[in-house]
Amino acid sequence: MGGNTFGNIFRITTFGESHGPGIGVVIDGCPPGISINPEDFQEYMSKRRPSSMIPGTTSRMERDNVKILSGVFKGMTTGAPILLFINNQDVKSGSYEILQRVFRPGHGDYTYFKKYGHYDFRGGGRYSARETVARVAAGVIAQKLLAPAGINIHSYTLSIGNITAERIDSEFARNNPFNFPDPDNFRELERQIRDARADGDSLGGVVETHINGCPPGLGEPVFDKLDADISKAVMSIGAVKGVEIGAGFKAAQMRGSENNDPILPSGFATNNAGGILGGISNGDEIIVRTAIKPIPSIKKRQKTITREGREEEIALNGRFDTCAIPRIIPVIEAMIRIVICDHYLRAKAVNCVKLPEEYR
Amino acid sequence: MGGNTFGNIFRITTFGESHGPGIGVVIDGCPPGISINPEDFQEYMSKRRPSSMIPGTTSRMERDNVKILSGVFKGMTTGAPILLFINNQDVKSGSYEILQRVFRPGHGDYTYFKKYGHYDFRGGGRYSARETVARVAAGVIAQKLLAPAGINIHSYTLSIGNITAERIDSEFARNNPFNFPDPDNFRELERQIRDARADGDSLGGVVETHINGCPPGLGEPVFDKLDADISKAVMSIGAVKGVEIGAGFKAAQMRGSENNDPILPSGFATNNAGGILGGISNGDEIIVRTAIKPIPSIKKRQKTITREGREEEIALNGRFDTCAIPRIIPVIEAMIRIVICDHYLRAKAVNCVKLPEEYR
Amino acid sequence: MGGNTFGNIFRITTFGESHGPGIGVVIDGCPPGISINPEDFQEYMSKRRPSSMIPGTTSRMERDNVKILSGVFKGMTTGAPILLFINNQDVKSGSYEILQRVFRPGHGDYTYFKKYGHYDFRGGGRYSARETVARVAAGVIAQKLLAPAGINIHSYTLSIGNITAERIDSEFARNNPFNFPDPDNFRELERQIRDARADGDSLGGVVETHINGCPPGLGEPVFDKLDADISKAVMSIGAVKGVEIGAGFKAAQMRGSENNDPILPSGFATNNAGGILGGISNGDEIIVRTAIKPIPSIKKRQKTITREGREEEIALNGRFDTCAIPRIIPVIEAMIRIVICDHYLRAKAVNCVKLPEEYR
Amino acid sequence: MGGNTFGNIFRITTFGESHGPGIGVVIDGCPPGISINPEDFQEYMSKRRPSSMIPGTTSRMERDNVKILSGVFKGMTTGAPILLFINNQDVKSGSYEILQRVFRPGHGDYTYFKKYGHYDFRGGGRYSARETVARVAAGVIAQKLLAPAGINIHSYTLSIGNITAERIDSEFARNNPFNFPDPDNFRELERQIRDARADGDSLGGVVETHINGCPPGLGEPVFDKLDADISKAVMSIGAVKGVEIGAGFKAAQMRGSENNDPILPSGFATNNAGGILGGISNGDEIIVRTAIKPIPSIKKRQKTITREGREEEIALNGRFDTCAIPRIIPVIEAMIRIVICDHYLRAKAVNCVKLPEEYR
Repeated sequence: MGGNTFGNIFRITTFGESHGPGIGVVIDGCPPGISINPEDFQEYMSKRRPSSMIPGTTSRMERDNVKILSGVFKGMTTGAPILLFINNQDVKSGSYEILQRVFRPGHGDYTYFKKYGHYDFRGGGRYSARETVARVAAGVIAQKLLAPAGINIHSYTLSIGNITAERIDSEFARNNPFNFPDPDNFRELERQIRDARADGDSLGGVVETHINGCPPGLGEPVFDKLDADISKAVMSIGAVKGVEIGAGFKAAQMRGSENNDPILPSGFATNNAGGILGGISNGDEIIVRTAIKPIPSIKKRQKTITREGREEEIALNGRFDTCAIPRIIPVIEAMIRIVICDHYLRAKAVNCVKLPEEYR
Repeated sequence: MGGNTFGNIFRITTFGESHGPGIGVVIDGCPPGISINPEDFQEYMSKRRPSSMIPGTTSRMERDNVKILSGVFKGMTTGAPILLFINNQDVKSGSYEILQRVFRPGHGDYTYFKKYGHYDFRGGGRYSARETVARVAAGVIAQKLLAPAGINIHSYTLSIGNITAERIDSEFARNNPFNFPDPDNFRELERQIRDARADGDSLGGVVETHINGCPPGLGEPVFDKLDADISKAVMSIGAVKGVEIGAGFKAAQMRGSENNDPILPSGFATNNAGGILGGISNGDEIIVRTAIKPIPSIKKRQKTITREGREEEIALNGRFDTCAIPRIIPVIEAMIRIVICDHYLRAKAVNCVKLPEEYR
Repeated sequence: MGGNTFGNIFRITTFGESHGPGIGVVIDGCPPGISINPEDFQEYMSKRRPSSMIPGTTSRMERDNVKILSGVFKGMTTGAPILLFINNQDVKSGSYEILQRVFRPGHGDYTYFKKYGHYDFRGGGRYSARETVARVAAGVIAQKLLAPAGINIHSYTLSIGNITAERIDSEFARNNPFNFPDPDNFRELERQIRDARADGDSLGGVVETHINGCPPGLGEPVFDKLDADISKAVMSIGAVKGVEIGAGFKAAQMRGSENNDPILPSGFATNNAGGILGGISNGDEIIVRTAIKPIPSIKKRQKTITREGREEEIALNGRFDTCAIPRIIPVIEAMIRIVICDHYLRAKAVNCVKLPEEYR
Repeated sequence: MGGNTFGNIFRITTFGESHGPGIGVVIDGCPPGISINPEDFQEYMSKRRPSSMIPGTTSRMERDNVKILSGVFKGMTTGAPILLFINNQDVKSGSYEILQRVFRPGHGDYTYFKKYGHYDFRGGGRYSARETVARVAAGVIAQKLLAPAGINIHSYTLSIGNITAERIDSEFARNNPFNFPDPDNFRELERQIRDARADGDSLGGVVETHINGCPPGLGEPVFDKLDADISKAVMSIGAVKGVEIGAGFKAAQMRGSENNDPILPSGFATNNAGGILGGISNGDEIIVRTAIKPIPSIKKRQKTITREGREEEIALNGRFDTCAIPRIIPVIEAMIRIVICDHYLRAKAVNCVKLPEEYR
């Protein structure tokens, strides 16, 4: 009820602060017999981790080794709750002294103070981006359940700031640090990021995510629709300000005859629906687009107030990303995996009479 | 778990099919002592109801009188669950015969059939827009709780099809059937709707909603953020394909220094955040934008398949809206009211130590 | 959150007051394709109903026809929420005038007044035994799911007042109005009830329930143990004051070597566990014993206070059972069926890897 | 959904196995501003811990220091989820080899194997009594919330095996290792335990718990009654086989005129209700009695079967309690505290209109 739990059958609860001993997650409802090893987490954790190879990311270096403290015996899940814990290793509270006095614009400092009568001034505490390591770790378990069912997910950066991809080259996207799929606009993108960094400023962007292989029938009417749960999952990530499914906001400009996807014996002729009809997956590719605001921590001077309400200016010093998109992508994917996994198990439970073969 | 329940403390469960005896909702968790009368529902129900005064809306006429079957004694809530029931009065299943054979493009026919091994061909059954009368009725109870706390909500139609409001005249919006706020573009809008209707086609649009008077501190980290729950609430409405908070997708194009709202002793200088920081209300106006696809039921011929998978063409005959925006607005507002009301009661429960005066 | 919902996947929400329009229940999570007809309810509803054939029961006569208002199409569940509604037909509020002034001992009058600042003086409102018709109706749906799986449940009256069955003749129990299984003590039982009635008094008793055919593996560690959920289900019935599983309180007097059930290749040699080990069904018969207090509504004079706290005496006049056991039995069975059904669906959802054949 | 979560607003999730790295609990929904220190746990943890001072308890010695890994900053709760972790220190898996082959009678070995297709043979894994350290730790947080409200809880051992306390001397109970309140029968009790131990056998018993200072109005109709939730909480503890409230099973033998508690201007004249009427606390002392089976781990030979279903005899060697009552008492108390605390916060949330002063 404190809001730190997500999911119904496959249910995760995260805990931990950015500058405490560590961050973790309990996963309850994971079926037994799934193979899990500490190495399984490395690929995903390293994507989320700031890297010196990405120009414009924070210099804080965490190893982010995931410790499995329960629920796994001899490399297999037992059906018991799984506890994953990631130590915080590089904690310097010193640089956060100013945060005891003033609210950072664009951060949760002000609202946490209003809600809880305090705020954890050591770098955001619970609302720090560091909380997302727990989500990524949980997403790895979800992935272990989805992979054998043939469900795959991949994302790319549709835009950063004013630069939008006009051509989608997935191979190119995988091999550049911003997961940007358009080789033609890449130089322009790099220049824009360099400029923002030079100005002590930051950039947002839009991520597009595709889920393939999802069987028809996932999603529960009328509130726990698959798109409704995906929206909540994605919107619960710190910097996200918008989400759309399929044609999304563009659908609002179409006529019905354009937007409706004709159904052919071979499948849907188009995919404006983004793979979801009436809140239930239709077997087509699921498409989600996520709008991410620029990182609020910037070195530029900003107007703010003190805890006592007095005017003040703040210019942050510290380890900040210029653009967080590449690090948010694994978080978006983890949250979507958790939603799909949860709905997969829900479909198994409820529809005992006529369940597609592939669910069993 | 069937997905028909929404909310945590203020919790609603809807039931009923468009062509069955009626539609209803149980509200559990409503505090005692709230005055409720059957007339309280009329204003909201009539907004959702198709009206002959709105050009382009279905000719189905329902009276939509709300019967209070439990939880209210002598005009006051007792703390017991409240059952609201709305009879279906104008049920003609005859015109739906074709739906026994083919899937309507853009509807849930196909996915319900895949999920449940059947579909209720009498006009959509559970995934009909008629289900939303229950949401609107529940929203009235939420409104009764929010009004004394000074929380108000209002919406207008930001765009329909290609016509976007460039000027916001709230008075004008309240007094035209499309809740469109721009008098300068209104003629153009009417022409566009007339054209679409003449073509047997339909139009979508974007709704902007403002919540005023919401105290700071509503929303629970990290998953039940206020914006995350609003997104789920709004995305769970049938035709919605996108949602954004504050600057939304535009925030993705800004730099941090532009997007961050400076904090002044008098309050926030701008409101790109849309009233929510770190998932918690900041006391400023909350702004939500909702993208609605064009109604999928159109008279134009469309390609589809039969339940056996054979090619077929379908041209629907029946009572369809050309543009559903004005009828969806009260549903969006009801869902947002329910979210705010639920978070209001959650804040009361959890933050027993330092709770703003106005919560008590 | 108001407490009127029970279950996780197979989830029921009841509503309605004893002297309002009626009582009902929404069942969400019922799989599609289950055959349901209005007549299916008659057998169970009539067991719960007061009958002139049972000496010592109230003379209030309700027909208790169950109306199916949603979720069923052409006699089959659709997967949508099922709304069952039972009209109140024989409502005389007149005889309840005294209840506006004083609290009845042994009833919820006092606590509801303290909690909600009011009490519904029309016969108990929400805490009336009449609320249980909704539970019995929901139990019929659960039964429809359990029957094909070969899970059966039956109960008898182990004791009423001081008379305890020493011999169990199930055939005899089925054919007498108190479901008392001991023909040798039956005369004595009848005399005791006659005496209590003559004195304007009432009697409690103990019910023993047996569930056969339950597969091993139902129940979730560590809180949602099958016995924990059965205990909550049974204790949530108005007059219940105790519950035990298997040897129950007698197990507390045994040594480990007596109480442990030896495991043989043919099964468990004894059943002190009552069919549940570690909170999970072991495939043996599940045995539950429920202690029911005497009905608090009696004609004898009792000391009480007014709403203003002044001393007063009360002697109730009305339609009261002398012994409610036979009418509570179907409620106990309904609640246990709902628990088993819910855990059956949960086991289906979570244990996707190694699930016994019969679950699918 | 895996069953490892308990509570609604004050919600705990436990994890960890008896022979893994440790046991822990996440508490979500704890209000901010509660003072918590690692030392707060010592008193409660040491009561649950086996002690060489108690004749007849296991010789396994754990230090059971509770580590606070999140949710507390500078000795105060922040409103964020609290993670408590207790390392396992004295893990010898070696002695558990036999458990790879055969099922121990009276344990969850058989049912876990049937449910999950495996069982964790290292001493019970998740269904080990060691799991309860997490419950006791969470109960300490609940106690921190209840103490300032004047809610106190204490328990004693009503009976062990055949020896029942006939006189209640609370002072005496506090000062003997079995918390047995009857000095006259104490010698007899000691002899009985000595005998059982000499025979390699074990003993069960009954615990009586009293909650004082609970305000009227806690408990939610109709399923989340206070007594229903207490029953579930207590029944979810491993060895518990029965629970009763107030007069409990004895109420079933009384007449209504005896069992009803007369209401006087000064309060209730008797307390057969055990402080709960209609599922809601009435302000009187709450009384709960819990039946605990003898510990199933005994040195005596018992009949069992192997995982392949072949006959076998087992005589356990290891560190076993003869009587677990004194170690289960803190677990019972912790679970009841958690229930009361949860209902306290629920009452705060829902009854916003007319709430007794003391709730705020």
